[in-house]
Amino acid sequence: MATFNLEDYLSSRRAAVDRALERYVPDQSSHSHTVWQAMRYGLFPGGKRIRPILTLAAGELFGGSHKLLLPFACAIEMIHAYSLVHDDLPALDNDDLRRGAPTAHRVFGEGLAVLAGDGLLTEAFCLMTSAQVARIVSPKLLVELIHEVAYSAGARGLVAGQALDLQADEDDADLAKVEYIHVRKTGRLILASVRIGARLAGAKPADLRRITRYGEFLGLAFQVGDDILDAEPDAVSRQGGESGGRERRKATYPSVIGLAQAKERLKELLQQAVKQLEPFGARAKVLNGLATYIGTRPLQVQATLTTEEMQH
Amino acid sequence: MATFNLEDYLSSRRAAVDRALERYVPDQSSHSHTVWQAMRYGLFPGGKRIRPILTLAAGELFGGSHKLLLPFACAIEMIHAYSLVHDDLPALDNDDLRRGAPTAHRVFGEGLAVLAGDGLLTEAFCLMTSAQVARIVSPKLLVELIHEVAYSAGARGLVAGQALDLQADEDDADLAKVEYIHVRKTGRLILASVRIGARLAGAKPADLRRITRYGEFLGLAFQVGDDILDAEPDAVSRQGGESGGRERRKATYPSVIGLAQAKERLKELLQQAVKQLEPFGARAKVLNGLATYIGTRPLQVQATLTTEEMQH
Repeated sequence: MATFNLEDYLSSRRAAVDRALERYVPDQSSHSHTVWQAMRYGLFPGGKRIRPILTLAAGELFGGSHKLLLPFACAIEMIHAYSLVHDDLPALDNDDLRRGAPTAHRVFGEGLAVLAGDGLLTEAFCLMTSAQVARIVSPKLLVELIHEVAYSAGARGLVAGQALDLQADEDDADLAKVEYIHVRKTGRLILASVRIGARLAGAKPADLRRITRYGEFLGLAFQVGDDILDAEPDAVSRQGGESGGRERRKATYPSVIGLAQAKERLKELLQQAVKQLEPFGARAKVLNGLATYIGTRPLQVQATLTTEEMQH
Repeated sequence: MATFNLEDYLSSRRAAVDRALERYVPDQSSHSHTVWQAMRYGLFPGGKRIRPILTLAAGELFGGSHKLLLPFACAIEMIHAYSLVHDDLPALDNDDLRRGAPTAHRVFGEGLAVLAGDGLLTEAFCLMTSAQVARIVSPKLLVELIHEVAYSAGARGLVAGQALDLQADEDDADLAKVEYIHVRKTGRLILASVRIGARLAGAKPADLRRITRYGEFLGLAFQVGDDILDAEPDAVSRQGGESGGRERRKATYPSVIGLAQAKERLKELLQQAVKQLEPFGARAKVLNGLATYIGTRPLQVQATLTTEEMQH
C-alpha cells in the first residue's frame, strides 16, 4: 500500500478512458461531421472521468481486464456527457460555461446541442452492443448490464432526477425530497458505474452486494459534495466543477439543512461507503481512495453562506 | 385474398400497439409523474403507428407471435416519438402543432420536452432488455437487434439525418444530398422496423435479404411521400400528417426535383419495394398493402405549388 499513489492511478485511468473514447467516438469526416463534432465537444476534454474510473476500479478489484471494462466504462461516460449537454441548455440549467469553456449550445447552437446529446446517448447503446463487446461478454450478462444502464439513466433514474430537479424549488424542498432527487439524478448512474465493473469481472453475489452498498453511499455522497461545491460563493471554482453554476436549482443539501450539516452528511456517507469495503482489505485501496477523493474538495469548502442561506 | 381488408388490419394492429404502449409506458403516480406525463403525451394518441405495424407485419409473415414482436415494435415507436418531441422544439423545427394538438414543449415547457424525449429514448432500451423479453428471445439475437436499433437511431442514422436536415438549406441542396439525409432521417428506422420483425420471427437469410431491400425502398418512399404532403399548400392537412409543418426544412424532394418528379420517384420506389415481395406470394399481402397505403395520400396531392417552388 505504501507504493500506491491515487493521483497516479487517476491520471493513468483517465488517459485510458480518453484513448478509448477517441476510438469509440472518432472524429468523423463524413457528411454528418458537425453532430459528431458537437458530440466530441461534449466528451472532450471532459472532467474527472469519475464514472468510468469507478467502473475500471470495481472491475479491477475482481480481476477484470481493461479490454472487458472500457466499452462499458466509456458508454457510461457518454451517457453522463449527454446528460450535461442537455442539462446546460437554456430551457434547463441555462449554463453558458462548463469547466471554464462555453457550453455546447453556445458553440453549436441549441438545435445541434439537443441532437449531440441524443447522439451520445444512442451511441452509448450502440457501443455496449457492438461486435467487439459481444465477442467477450456472455450475451445473457450483456443484456442484463444494458438493462441496468438503461434503467439507471432512464425515466426512473437520471431523467426522473433531472425532471424533478427542474420542477423543484426551495419553498417546497425538504430533506426527503432532496435525497429522492439526488438518488435518481446522480446516485443511480454512479451505482451502475460501480456495479457494472464488478459484474463484468464476475464478482460473486456476496461481493456484488457489498459493492452495491458502496456504490449507493458513494452515489449520494457524490451529489452532496457537488451541492456543497455549488454553495461556494466563488463562481470560478464552481465552473471548474462537474456541474457548473445552476442558479435555477434550489433543492440542494446546503439549502435545506445548511452547509455544516451537509458536510457532516457527506462525511457519514463516505464512512459508510468505505466500511462496505472492509472485507476486501488492501485489495480495495483504489475504491477506498476514490471515496476520499470525492470528499476532499467539498469538505474543504468554507462556511461563507449568505444570511438567507444560513436560516435553513 | 378477397377477404383481406387493409383498413381492418391497420386498426386492429394499431389497437394492439396502443394497448402494449399503455403497459410499457404506464401513467406513473410517483414523484416523477410529470416527466412520464410528458412522455405519454408524446406517445398518445399517436399517429398511424406505421413503424410498429411494419414490425408486426414483417414478423407475422414468418410466424412470429405478438408476444415476441410487440416489445420491439413499441420500443421503435418510442424512439420515433422521442425524435418527434425533440424535432418539434423551437431550436429545431419550431412546431407549435402536431396532428392538430399543441406540441409537447407548448404544453410542458421546453425543459420537460427535452427530458421527455430523453426518457422515451432511454426507456426504449430498457424495454428491449427487460426480463420479459430476455425470457423469449435468445440473448445473442437480442444483443444484435438492440445494436441494429441503436445504429439506426443514432448518430449514423436518425440523429445524423436530423442534424443534416437542420443544417441543410435550399441553396446547397441537391438530389444526392436530399437522399443522403432522407435515408438517415427516416429510412434507417423504417428499415429497422421491418428487419427487426423478420429477425425476431426467425426469417431465413435469403428471406431477410428480400425483406431488407423492401425496407430500404419503403423507408425512402416514406420520406418522399412525407415531403410531398409537406409541399401541399393546405396547412391543415400538413398538421394531420406525421411530421407537421416545418418552415425551416428546405431540403425536400419537391423543392429539389419538383412535385411531379417527386411523385414519379415515389411510385418507382413503391414498385421496387413491392417487387421484392414477389417470392412470398399472397403471404406478403400485408407488407404489399402497407406500401400502397404509404403512397395513397401523397400520390393524391395536387400540383398547386407556388411559382418559386416550380422553378426547381
